[in-house]
Amino acid sequence: MISTAEEGTANGILRKLSLMVPPIKPRVIKARSKSFTHVSSKFESMDYDVWSNELLIKEEQSKSYRQVVEVDILRWILFLLVGIFTGLVAVFINISIRFLQSLQFQYVLHYMQNCTTGYCEFLNYLIWYLAFGSFTLLGTAIVVFVEPGAAGSGIPFIVSCLNGVCIPHITTLKVLIVKAVGVIFACVAGLATGKEGPFIHVGSIIGGIIINGARKIKIHWLQLKLAELNNSREKRDLIAAGFAAGVAAAFSSPVGATLLSLEEGTSFWSVILMWRIFFCAIASTFTFNSVTKLILNGVIGGAVGAFYIYASSKITFYRKRFINNSALQLIDSAVLSFITAIFGIVSIYSVQNCIVVKDTEGLMYSFQLNCSQGFYNEMSVFWLNSQESLLRLLFNTDMFQIENLILYCILYFILFIMINGIQLPTGVFIPALVVGATWGRIFGLILLKIFPQMPATVPIKYALLGAAAQLGGLLRTTLSLSVLVVEASGSIIFGFPLMFTIFTTKWVGDFFSENFYEAMINIVGLPLLPADPPPLVSDIEAKDLMNAAVVSFPTKVSIQYIIDVLGRVKHQGFPVINFEFNFQSNGTSELCMFGELQGFIYRHQLMTILHCKLFSPPETPEQVEKILSSFRKYENASVHIQNLNLNEDEKLKIIDLKPFMNPSPYSAQAIMSFPRIFRLLRSLGLRHVIIVNNTNQVVGIISRKDLAKYRCWRHAASMGLKELRIR
Amino acid sequence: MISTAEEGTANGILRKLSLMVPPIKPRVIKARSKSFTHVSSKFESMDYDVWSNELLIKEEQSKSYRQVVEVDILRWILFLLVGIFTGLVAVFINISIRFLQSLQFQYVLHYMQNCTTGYCEFLNYLIWYLAFGSFTLLGTAIVVFVEPGAAGSGIPFIVSCLNGVCIPHITTLKVLIVKAVGVIFACVAGLATGKEGPFIHVGSIIGGIIINGARKIKIHWLQLKLAELNNSREKRDLIAAGFAAGVAAAFSSPVGATLLSLEEGTSFWSVILMWRIFFCAIASTFTFNSVTKLILNGVIGGAVGAFYIYASSKITFYRKRFINNSALQLIDSAVLSFITAIFGIVSIYSVQNCIVVKDTEGLMYSFQLNCSQGFYNEMSVFWLNSQESLLRLLFNTDMFQIENLILYCILYFILFIMINGIQLPTGVFIPALVVGATWGRIFGLILLKIFPQMPATVPIKYALLGAAAQLGGLLRTTLSLSVLVVEASGSIIFGFPLMFTIFTTKWVGDFFSENFYEAMINIVGLPLLPADPPPLVSDIEAKDLMNAAVVSFPTKVSIQYIIDVLGRVKHQGFPVINFEFNFQSNGTSELCMFGELQGFIYRHQLMTILHCKLFSPPETPEQVEKILSSFRKYENASVHIQNLNLNEDEKLKIIDLKPFMNPSPYSAQAIMSFPRIFRLLRSLGLRHVIIVNNTNQVVGIISRKDLAKYRCWRHAASMGLKELRIR
Repeated sequence: MISTAEEGTANGILRKLSLMVPPIKPRVIKARSKSFTHVSSKFESMDYDVWSNELLIKEEQSKSYRQVVEVDILRWILFLLVGIFTGLVAVFINISIRFLQSLQFQYVLHYMQNCTTGYCEFLNYLIWYLAFGSFTLLGTAIVVFVEPGAAGSGIPFIVSCLNGVCIPHITTLKVLIVKAVGVIFACVAGLATGKEGPFIHVGSIIGGIIINGARKIKIHWLQLKLAELNNSREKRDLIAAGFAAGVAAAFSSPVGATLLSLEEGTSFWSVILMWRIFFCAIASTFTFNSVTKLILNGVIGGAVGAFYIYASSKITFYRKRFINNSALQLIDSAVLSFITAIFGIVSIYSVQNCIVVKDTEGLMYSFQLNCSQGFYNEMSVFWLNSQESLLRLLFNTDMFQIENLILYCILYFILFIMINGIQLPTGVFIPALVVGATWGRIFGLILLKIFPQMPATVPIKYALLGAAAQLGGLLRTTLSLSVLVVEASGSIIFGFPLMFTIFTTKWVGDFFSENFYEAMINIVGLPLLPADPPPLVSDIEAKDLMNAAVVSFPTKVSIQYIIDVLGRVKHQGFPVINFEFNFQSNGTSELCMFGELQGFIYRHQLMTILHCKLFSPPETPEQVEKILSSFRKYENASVHIQNLNLNEDEKLKIIDLKPFMNPSPYSAQAIMSFPRIFRLLRSLGLRHVIIVNNTNQVVGIISRKDLAKYRCWRHAASMGLKELRIR
Repeated sequence: MISTAEEGTANGILRKLSLMVPPIKPRVIKARSKSFTHVSSKFESMDYDVWSNELLIKEEQSKSYRQVVEVDILRWILFLLVGIFTGLVAVFINISIRFLQSLQFQYVLHYMQNCTTGYCEFLNYLIWYLAFGSFTLLGTAIVVFVEPGAAGSGIPFIVSCLNGVCIPHITTLKVLIVKAVGVIFACVAGLATGKEGPFIHVGSIIGGIIINGARKIKIHWLQLKLAELNNSREKRDLIAAGFAAGVAAAFSSPVGATLLSLEEGTSFWSVILMWRIFFCAIASTFTFNSVTKLILNGVIGGAVGAFYIYASSKITFYRKRFINNSALQLIDSAVLSFITAIFGIVSIYSVQNCIVVKDTEGLMYSFQLNCSQGFYNEMSVFWLNSQESLLRLLFNTDMFQIENLILYCILYFILFIMINGIQLPTGVFIPALVVGATWGRIFGLILLKIFPQMPATVPIKYALLGAAAQLGGLLRTTLSLSVLVVEASGSIIFGFPLMFTIFTTKWVGDFFSENFYEAMINIVGLPLLPADPPPLVSDIEAKDLMNAAVVSFPTKVSIQYIIDVLGRVKHQGFPVINFEFNFQSNGTSELCMFGELQGFIYRHQLMTILHCKLFSPPETPEQVEKILSSFRKYENASVHIQNLNLNEDEKLKIIDLKPFMNPSPYSAQAIMSFPRIFRLLRSLGLRHVIIVNNTNQVVGIISRKDLAKYRCWRHAASMGLKELRIR
């Protein structure tokens, strides 16, 4: 009932519209079980989506890649600061606890030691309770009266915060102070409690407030950059890093801390985030342990690694181009093998250097040649043994002379470059470790010559660092490489210089080139999607990227038409639209049709329908089960369109695709920006995103390659976007 | 020009429709840089999206949770098999290489040792080349003629495969065999190459074919389950696990292998996947090293941990309920502190046991009491020292007697339970380690009494395992816990029994309860979203979950209306729709309106517009920059609606929201199923998903809580779905 007086007014029109488009009534869902716990409605949710609007796109168009790099560097610095501050707070807490505990012990000892019987015993109870209980009460008092949010470990709140639940007043400076003081009292009170929960909370708080803290510095340039970083997404990452920094400070275990932050804490993950968290955890442990060693190995590793990647890319590229038949490939192998043999035997004969082989495991091969009894040719040890045995010698003994190491290092490095692209199963880890261990040892021996007062184990240490740096220069991983080298060398004491070397390697290497496998992937032209979209592409929209020649099916369609379409196009999936015409093909049918998006169906599902003649909708559960099992059976099998066995009657049948199609495929508006499309496809692991216009009509389709061809390059601190050819 | 003859035919209608809805012309994007590399068009993309249709939903409705658990167990077994088979292949390769190398050395030694001058030297070159070069040629020949896909390390292909690029013929049994034989020859040939690349490829192949292999077993029940697992998503996870298994076999380093697989390999990540990969890597290393130790500690740790979680949930719950003001909280603390003190002092006085304190670091506190010079009361060592010092003693010395350990373990465990929910910053790691180390030591001492022939270090080893098991029982993490304990104890040799214990702990604990922080999160009612949607909910649709009372804004709207709406509802974001009426509020305005989705705007952005009076669209880049900086400034600041300072003229102004709104928010159809909505919101970290009908009109909105209230519970191998109350 709309009164006439209301007609034409805003409300009237609105109400009419509401009547015209009735809201969809939500169905009441029967829960599968009763519950005694609850979801609290008092917590708001965070939004980790990157917001976007016209203004932002305009701003981006005026930005240069230089600004992107600047923000990137600023971000690393913020992570570093989180680590350092967390370490400092942890040091403060630890020193305070030790100091108070020693006072406490003096007091208890003074009063109790001298009196052990009768009336005294009761007094002792009181003294003991005072010595410990007073701290409990003090701690509780400041928590209760000053900041109740500081109670407990705080980890559940941080975990929820990282998952996307907004918890107010959990990352404030006040909580930090009360937490720090409270945990000192709790620990001195001798309660059954640990420091690591509060440490984690403290680290997370520092992560949460670091941006606001940095904004106190009134430099206009810095202010602008920080404003860009001041969003929930960046804050989330910094809180996750603070989480790890807290654990790292509590256990002096940066690797474990990073992992705990990932396993227990963060709900959102990317490799880059992991590196940042790991970096922050190292910074925290460094600060806590006051270790400040600087190492040149990382720089060498990064640079040599980048050179290796460049050289091996070239050699693989030329091999792919020129050595393209079996005969040439065999000759290629023979030549390489000949060079390897020549290098080995010539160097053995030319260097007449006799040594005692310290063969601890009875597995070393070596030639005596012209050496006297018990001595062996040193060069033959390099060339005759497996590379794993050689590594063990380089890491554990003091056998090799510097001239031989230099000769072997150069020859082996040449071979190591030349092997790329050869027709053999190959791996780069062990050779990289051998090369790195060799030059690391050379470096150590030189150091020892210059500074003879250094310990004799320096060459061994530097062999380990060199190996890590060389491999790091190829892989550019950090966390896994640290663990691999530590686990492989069986020694954990040398952890910090190692991690430092590996991070230096990564930065130096990234300055020059991408990593080894990325380089190989680029040569083959694999359409890989990185974790994040390239920067500064918000002005590119879905409609600029999409393939407009999308082929759709109406919901009801003749078998003949399906056969025609599948025979003519190679697409792997087809939108289903509400084009309500019982369509019959006449051979020259128009493939492009438009209509409202109803669903999506895969090629293999259509093939299964045709192959198994599933032309009528299923009715009983047994039929459903049967159809599904054929769908699953043919999901990865390829049935050819020529092998279908359908007669003319069957071809004229009309089939309803509704029961078979996916009724709610992920779709996006034609005006959605590149980064948003990218995240949708990449995060959900999709093959296609259907593009619709503003009335939900299918206008295009975007697949991986449409996104992969825009690639961000970085070289020597500059970066840009390039469009790759698709071929 | 449509000919009349065509009118009414299918083609005619189609062509007309095409004319009516012209396709959107893609804009040509200027690349920011030229490129010499390319994206190859020959590679198809994979689809890691879970397909869905009506049939699948029908099938799910007839399924029970028991079937979900069965598939889950089968999945773990598949991961185990990948690890074992990869380990076996690696063992085969290693043994073959050693055997061939020893033959090779015998041959070279035999011919070369006896002849070192003149003519002989030339012969030696030839013999050397034959000994090494023949293997190179053999290896190349089988690669070139049998399976060229086996060349190189294979890692780039596996990485691309995990990213979503489909590479045919890369995970077949033929590649595996050629790869295995080829790498043997390549290694024996002495080329600069490692085994780990091929190992990784072999592991990935085993992961890729394991499901098809298992389907060879003709058991109907198994066949059905395997058919469900036979999709790209599962295969991707198994390949990632195989990747890790390969590295683990090459380096005997399961932790590093898992990390490398995550850092370098997988593009999609979840905690559960990491656990599976880690498990597979352990299985591979176990097989490779033939270690088969079974340990009871895991079972105890899991069970005690689950009990602890149950007890501490209860005690936290009651504390929250009954101890709800400052006075009670202080009394509570005083009582707890009193009990702690009583436990300490009574046990010190009642156990008169004198020992020598092995004080290596000069930091131990202890009472002499009635003991003679140089001896101290053993119990006082437990209660006087910090828990970190105590842990060091438990892990490194043989000080404590079994009776004292039992007494302390019981008392401390009681205190450890009672401290939950107290108003103090607390942590559980260190106390859990202390409890675990204590009962681990007790367990070790009992073992030593039963089997006196065991080494005397057994109690120390079991203290370490017990500590890991107890902490694992609370946290249920695997990878990070292993690394933490190894890094903290400084000993890496004890890695395998440790990892085995931790996994047993996880399974036993998960059988009884969720982990400690989840339990705490549930008590507070935090709306956390797990990594995956609950099982068997495909029949629940967006329209059943959504909040239909969504409040939208038209693109052009009066300031007064914005103020009215923001004052009346608390929503944090609003869809913008094309309701083309210049809307003016009259105080009783209707908030629900329907229209085509145009964009989305946050409350804080609207508040910024009102607060900073941004009523006209910006024109110059400076204006853009200025508006954006105010947007960023107020993103996290809360301006109150009452504090706005707007005059009546300003309130009557009409504002165009287009430049400020996000033009392409993520939206979903009303019929999208629960799991798909869940993945969209969770993977992209969204706060809202806008629900539209099939003509893109806004009909509702889904936020985190609408999804979080459906929670999957697991207990003692059964599971189900419960709906939590929101309060």
